[in-house]
Amino acid sequence: MRHGRPNVLVTSAGRRGELIEILRQSFAAGGRRASVFTADASALSAAGLVGDGHHVVPRLDDPTYLDVLTRLCDELDVGHVVPTIDTELPLMASAVRHLDNQGTRVWVSGPETIALAQDKRLTNRFLAEHGLPHARQWDLDSLDDFHSLSFPVIAKPARGSSSVGLARVTSSDALSQLRTERGGQDYVVESVARGTEYTVDVLVDRLGTCRASIPRKRLEVRAGEVSKGVTVDRPDLAALAREVVTKLPDAFGVLNVQIFADATGPSAVIEVNARFGGGFPLTYRAGADLPGWLAQDIDLVPPTASLQWAAGLVMLRYDRAVFASADDLGVQT
Amino acid sequence: MRHGRPNVLVTSAGRRGELIEILRQSFAAGGRRASVFTADASALSAAGLVGDGHHVVPRLDDPTYLDVLTRLCDELDVGHVVPTIDTELPLMASAVRHLDNQGTRVWVSGPETIALAQDKRLTNRFLAEHGLPHARQWDLDSLDDFHSLSFPVIAKPARGSSSVGLARVTSSDALSQLRTERGGQDYVVESVARGTEYTVDVLVDRLGTCRASIPRKRLEVRAGEVSKGVTVDRPDLAALAREVVTKLPDAFGVLNVQIFADATGPSAVIEVNARFGGGFPLTYRAGADLPGWLAQDIDLVPPTASLQWAAGLVMLRYDRAVFASADDLGVQT
Repeated sequence: MRHGRPNVLVTSAGRRGELIEILRQSFAAGGRRASVFTADASALSAAGLVGDGHHVVPRLDDPTYLDVLTRLCDELDVGHVVPTIDTELPLMASAVRHLDNQGTRVWVSGPETIALAQDKRLTNRFLAEHGLPHARQWDLDSLDDFHSLSFPVIAKPARGSSSVGLARVTSSDALSQLRTERGGQDYVVESVARGTEYTVDVLVDRLGTCRASIPRKRLEVRAGEVSKGVTVDRPDLAALAREVVTKLPDAFGVLNVQIFADATGPSAVIEVNARFGGGFPLTYRAGADLPGWLAQDIDLVPPTASLQWAAGLVMLRYDRAVFASADDLGVQT
Repeated sequence: MRHGRPNVLVTSAGRRGELIEILRQSFAAGGRRASVFTADASALSAAGLVGDGHHVVPRLDDPTYLDVLTRLCDELDVGHVVPTIDTELPLMASAVRHLDNQGTRVWVSGPETIALAQDKRLTNRFLAEHGLPHARQWDLDSLDDFHSLSFPVIAKPARGSSSVGLARVTSSDALSQLRTERGGQDYVVESVARGTEYTVDVLVDRLGTCRASIPRKRLEVRAGEVSKGVTVDRPDLAALAREVVTKLPDAFGVLNVQIFADATGPSAVIEVNARFGGGFPLTYRAGADLPGWLAQDIDLVPPTASLQWAAGLVMLRYDRAVFASADDLGVQT
């Protein structure tokens, strides 16, 4: 069997309904007959109702998680596992070889890239060491002299995501108070980067080459997720993101790089996410079929999926509802 | 012309993409040929891309707003205007007679109901006067003795919505601090009601009779909107909501009533919203075609739309994206 197992499993599927639809469409366009299954610790996953079958699995911190996942991939004939949240990435990276042996490829970077992406201190150090644009950064707990800072500054958890816990701090008094409240919680303090925030979706192939780099601008954020965005023709940002992921030690698959920039160019790389970003549907609908290309790369077949894409596509989002019976989901009414 | 103008206009459409789809489906099921148009102060409305045509109108505080709306309804042959946000309701109520004269019916309650729904102090007084279950409530600014309270208490803006500014306060010190921060902003303090929160969607006809009352339970809230919910077989909550809206002076159309309750019954009515609730798609998909029934009531035709509905339907939501070109929306990239 040349192409290995046919099906796809999206883990920690949660609210990723659009990603499920994209994977289904991308695989079908590539002439593959793939079911897109979902897994989550909760039965109440919106994506679970969009996919071809939802499986409730143990929580990530449960010691049986990987065994259950392995067995599930075997039973469902899964060739591609797509993790979606930061907290599952180290676990997934540790299971790559084991799953590979049974013909299941995990769309995940290696452990060094994941460690680096998940800790803003390591990200910042990596950027500095490679001469890439970055914000000035300090540890909140070990910062001696608040008065030496140029306010405002940004304070955020070193290992946070989705802007949770992020605060814009405008004075040394406010920063002192923040340290009193959040001290010992591994907060970092950063200089404010010039410009506005862009996200660049990138695809890194199995040889570590960056094959696609698509910048989009955030127009509005809601509950930590981009709710309005637009693809932009910014070769400078595309090139910077490509440089970042190429210098990462063991990047693989679809990642995104968050960059502040203005009309004169990028001012700082803020974050690397070693997974599909929440706003990825915009990049896909603009024409960049990253899942299709990645699946072909994994299967060593010549690429037919297009990597052409269009700048100036706007994405607007609303709450889409899916329905099931309380009995089927185990919900008490 | 017996049925008046055919089309629908949803104002302040924003992210109400599902409501647009519901109105289109409901009217089509009723054998009506209706276009569902949208209006908003922003071109960047997700609902605008779901409907049959989006119109950018002045902001609500612009003195020309009602003139523009009136002209738009005329040009688009609009028979039904559906407002969606609290801040536009007083304006809409004031324009009812004027729009009615040109054959455009606004799905909005009268000014007394709207005033009462928008101010939690008036809501609380109304409930008390009618012997309906309610939380104890105080004005934050005029509260004398914090120590007389039984903590925790809930503090919230008297005229807020979507849980913005709501805080659970656990001590008199914390409440003092809140008063220092929010003093003069019309906060109210309420006793914590027993149980969990339910929303009851109701339909009030042109004679002021409550024709439908469907309770649903919130399972999860995200950014102030219900993201997971389930319809429930709770005749006690349905009856209480019916009693509330029947006692309101001039309720009309689709409203919802928020109630805290446990297994023993309701403990307090918390809020009345004189508009479609964000979670209304659940009620519709459970079978209660309130828009279809309301349109028939307005047109004085015998009801064919069903008001049967099913308990135990679960709604789960995810971010659905819609797309347009930056040029068409006037977005700079």
